[in-house]
Amino acid sequence: MSRTPKPLIHSNIAYSTPDRIVVRGKDLPNEVLGHMNLGDFAFLQLTGREATREQSAMFNAILITLVEHGMTPSAIAARMTYAGAPESLQAAVAAGLCGLGSVFVGSMEAACRMLSEALPYTSADVSDADLERIARDTVAAYRERGAIVPGLGHPLHKPIDPRTPRLFQLAADNGMAGRYVKLMKLIGAEAERASGKTLPINATGAIGAICCEFGFPWRIVRGFGVMARAIGLVGHIMEEGEKPMAIEIWQRIEDEASAHLRG
Amino acid sequence: MSRTPKPLIHSNIAYSTPDRIVVRGKDLPNEVLGHMNLGDFAFLQLTGREATREQSAMFNAILITLVEHGMTPSAIAARMTYAGAPESLQAAVAAGLCGLGSVFVGSMEAACRMLSEALPYTSADVSDADLERIARDTVAAYRERGAIVPGLGHPLHKPIDPRTPRLFQLAADNGMAGRYVKLMKLIGAEAERASGKTLPINATGAIGAICCEFGFPWRIVRGFGVMARAIGLVGHIMEEGEKPMAIEIWQRIEDEASAHLRG
Amino acid sequence: MSRTPKPLIHSNIAYSTPDRIVVRGKDLPNEVLGHMNLGDFAFLQLTGREATREQSAMFNAILITLVEHGMTPSAIAARMTYAGAPESLQAAVAAGLCGLGSVFVGSMEAACRMLSEALPYTSADVSDADLERIARDTVAAYRERGAIVPGLGHPLHKPIDPRTPRLFQLAADNGMAGRYVKLMKLIGAEAERASGKTLPINATGAIGAICCEFGFPWRIVRGFGVMARAIGLVGHIMEEGEKPMAIEIWQRIEDEASAHLRG
Amino acid sequence: MSRTPKPLIHSNIAYSTPDRIVVRGKDLPNEVLGHMNLGDFAFLQLTGREATREQSAMFNAILITLVEHGMTPSAIAARMTYAGAPESLQAAVAAGLCGLGSVFVGSMEAACRMLSEALPYTSADVSDADLERIARDTVAAYRERGAIVPGLGHPLHKPIDPRTPRLFQLAADNGMAGRYVKLMKLIGAEAERASGKTLPINATGAIGAICCEFGFPWRIVRGFGVMARAIGLVGHIMEEGEKPMAIEIWQRIEDEASAHLRG
Repeated sequence: MSRTPKPLIHSNIAYSTPDRIVVRGKDLPNEVLGHMNLGDFAFLQLTGREATREQSAMFNAILITLVEHGMTPSAIAARMTYAGAPESLQAAVAAGLCGLGSVFVGSMEAACRMLSEALPYTSADVSDADLERIARDTVAAYRERGAIVPGLGHPLHKPIDPRTPRLFQLAADNGMAGRYVKLMKLIGAEAERASGKTLPINATGAIGAICCEFGFPWRIVRGFGVMARAIGLVGHIMEEGEKPMAIEIWQRIEDEASAHLRG
Repeated sequence: MSRTPKPLIHSNIAYSTPDRIVVRGKDLPNEVLGHMNLGDFAFLQLTGREATREQSAMFNAILITLVEHGMTPSAIAARMTYAGAPESLQAAVAAGLCGLGSVFVGSMEAACRMLSEALPYTSADVSDADLERIARDTVAAYRERGAIVPGLGHPLHKPIDPRTPRLFQLAADNGMAGRYVKLMKLIGAEAERASGKTLPINATGAIGAICCEFGFPWRIVRGFGVMARAIGLVGHIMEEGEKPMAIEIWQRIEDEASAHLRG
Repeated sequence: MSRTPKPLIHSNIAYSTPDRIVVRGKDLPNEVLGHMNLGDFAFLQLTGREATREQSAMFNAILITLVEHGMTPSAIAARMTYAGAPESLQAAVAAGLCGLGSVFVGSMEAACRMLSEALPYTSADVSDADLERIARDTVAAYRERGAIVPGLGHPLHKPIDPRTPRLFQLAADNGMAGRYVKLMKLIGAEAERASGKTLPINATGAIGAICCEFGFPWRIVRGFGVMARAIGLVGHIMEEGEKPMAIEIWQRIEDEASAHLRG
Repeated sequence: MSRTPKPLIHSNIAYSTPDRIVVRGKDLPNEVLGHMNLGDFAFLQLTGREATREQSAMFNAILITLVEHGMTPSAIAARMTYAGAPESLQAAVAAGLCGLGSVFVGSMEAACRMLSEALPYTSADVSDADLERIARDTVAAYRERGAIVPGLGHPLHKPIDPRTPRLFQLAADNGMAGRYVKLMKLIGAEAERASGKTLPINATGAIGAICCEFGFPWRIVRGFGVMARAIGLVGHIMEEGEKPMAIEIWQRIEDEASAHLRG
């Protein structure tokens, strides 16, 4: 009884024939267009499953939270790039995305990783006492190696990050405020207790926890920030095309940075 | 009566205060999260206006059409990049986006440009005879300079591109099958007549026309493809992480490309 | 008499075997390392030929001219990206390169294109009178379509760009001040005469002309700027790691850009 | 006695005035062009110091080694990108660079880091016995945490990497075969002894050790690979423009990857 070996180059995402385009098993023109919104289709593209009504509400909210954060380094890089290569809008978006790394979008990934490693998705039911113990151990481990617990605190949004209660409320409304949301809250409280500082859960901590409720592998969580920010950056580039600021920024920085050399 | 001059560095997209995050005039936590889907928020981010129900349906359909096109050069570039730098998922998406230029996403932009230059958004009402004349003139001008009319024909999807009738039906359902959709169809028919070839309107031609119905400036149309494809690429990278193909592709190409040199 | 068809995937640049690495026909360890400088190896990589002593002097000078231009939009984009993803230095360089398009590096490419299209590389000998006529026709054609003649004028370097006389002197010293350098000078003089403005040849005009002396296809000329600037950007990133400015720039711009919204 | 505080935005790399362009204290037209090669200027740009004759020979050799490695994932990504956006050569180079991360260029950085952390640059003289002890401890620490010692072994170049003896010979010829080259060799020998495998020092191990001889901070070492590979990628793009392979690769992969879905 022979079996055909799996081909080495093999993708399950999509295929086309002359009269069909099928993504994740769905006929794109007939089963998707007009029937789904962009967030739901992103869910389908990434997971291969159709979002339930609750997942749709929650996943759209997560992605929307990540679209636009003001005049970030990422937006500035995109605008600088567009000023030099306006014929390559795609390269300006790409430049803006390149900086979504460990510093700015990483804390979301780090929160998801922390939670899913402290309490694996395959774990059996845990009691509240278990969660409290896990929270204590987790915070202690971060403190022992001098690392910052991800997903806590915010330089501007004080005393609370206004996105957090709203995201947690949506999680509760959609049946997704389970053990990971609980654990994130316990970790926040324990980090405050242990450090003596006010450390409210920020948006990336809330999103990291909700990503665990979805069961997403932590490695892909950064991707949500990347795809959402691509939308935000197109908005910045559109505005840069109409009301440019890149050249003015350049000249100011150039002038100031080398003033001491020009003497 | 003096007026403060507009500051040189000036953006109307978003702002934050300690307790608020406001995007395009809307309070993000309270007025957006849980109330909009991702496509609608993209519309808000880009235009500063809330999408009507019809615009929402149409804009989500356009973006979804652009998310996933199979194992494209863009997806291959993203997977190759991820194989070398798995710690920089954002750079893999960026690499994949860099190639969305004149060849692969440009025809959508070019179709929108062709239509909006042939019939400016500010034009008064035009008769069907006017549209027929514009179509003839447009096709003649492209043919005269030996250029390809954008948005027509497809190497695989024959005799028709299955996305086109569905997009045009959605445009009709949502009151957006106006003079630009008409003009695109007339241009397609005229191009077929003049060239003697079968040239069905492809998805990028349909989207270019519908973007004109929205009144989008042609310069931003490529951006829709870029932001949608960012979603698609995260899906490819997620699959590459689980079922890698990049290394196998690399070895095959390396072997074949230099076989004649190794002798 | 059958012939093997050329393989479809086929590169003539390099190959490796267990004990050899050969680039452009040269054994890398034994014939290149210790025998060439980086500029000469770039010439070999790009052209497949070894640079003569004169070509080496000139090509190294061209590339060096393009390495560092101060706190450019490209350098700012790279620094912004590094601030967000310090673990992905390569992505910061990539982000900085993305903006080397039509506005900032394009004039070099445009000058080379203008000259090599006005006087094709395959042209027979031309008299001075021919060159003068070509210069007049070229400038007239640009003026007629309202376009700027590339390679002329500079916002800061007035009355002359100090790199230009030096590059032209090196061209003369190395037997490369031929008909393209002459033509560029004639075009500059004609553009000044026709416009009544002072339009000295800038560095990109000089480089464009010298690239024509080499016989480089204009499509690759931008690549010289890209590869040289990669070196410059690594320098900026190294400095950013030691004396950061990105966060300070971000905060200033964020504050100023949305001040009118925060009220 | 007051002191002017250092400005917050402050760079020591370069400045321009109407008649001067100065990089790292050198007048670019008069002191650099015609006097330096590209590798030497890279050394100046990065370190602020002029390379000695020995440093020049060694640094040029390191960079050249990193320019071209055949049809790598990086080269494939660049070619794929160029096929989609031939008008944005810079974006194709950027896409190719994005993948120079932990897997493909990282081992050079990792070797430099391993060596400079095991034996800090500020260390006093060490005896051969000290070096042997450091080598043993280093290998033991890697083995204990199940990590691969960087800079050793090569999938193709067996039993030795032909670049390594040549790079070490150049180091010896130029007075740079000091304690870090010695330590790298001892680590290689110890790793072979401890693992029972043949683990010759590869090119990235040799370069990592020589970078330590220069005293470069390990964080910048990846940058040498990035800037060198930018040159290599321009060569690949130039060839892709003349003898394209990207479309053929795309079609083969597309066909194979989704064959099981098309049924």
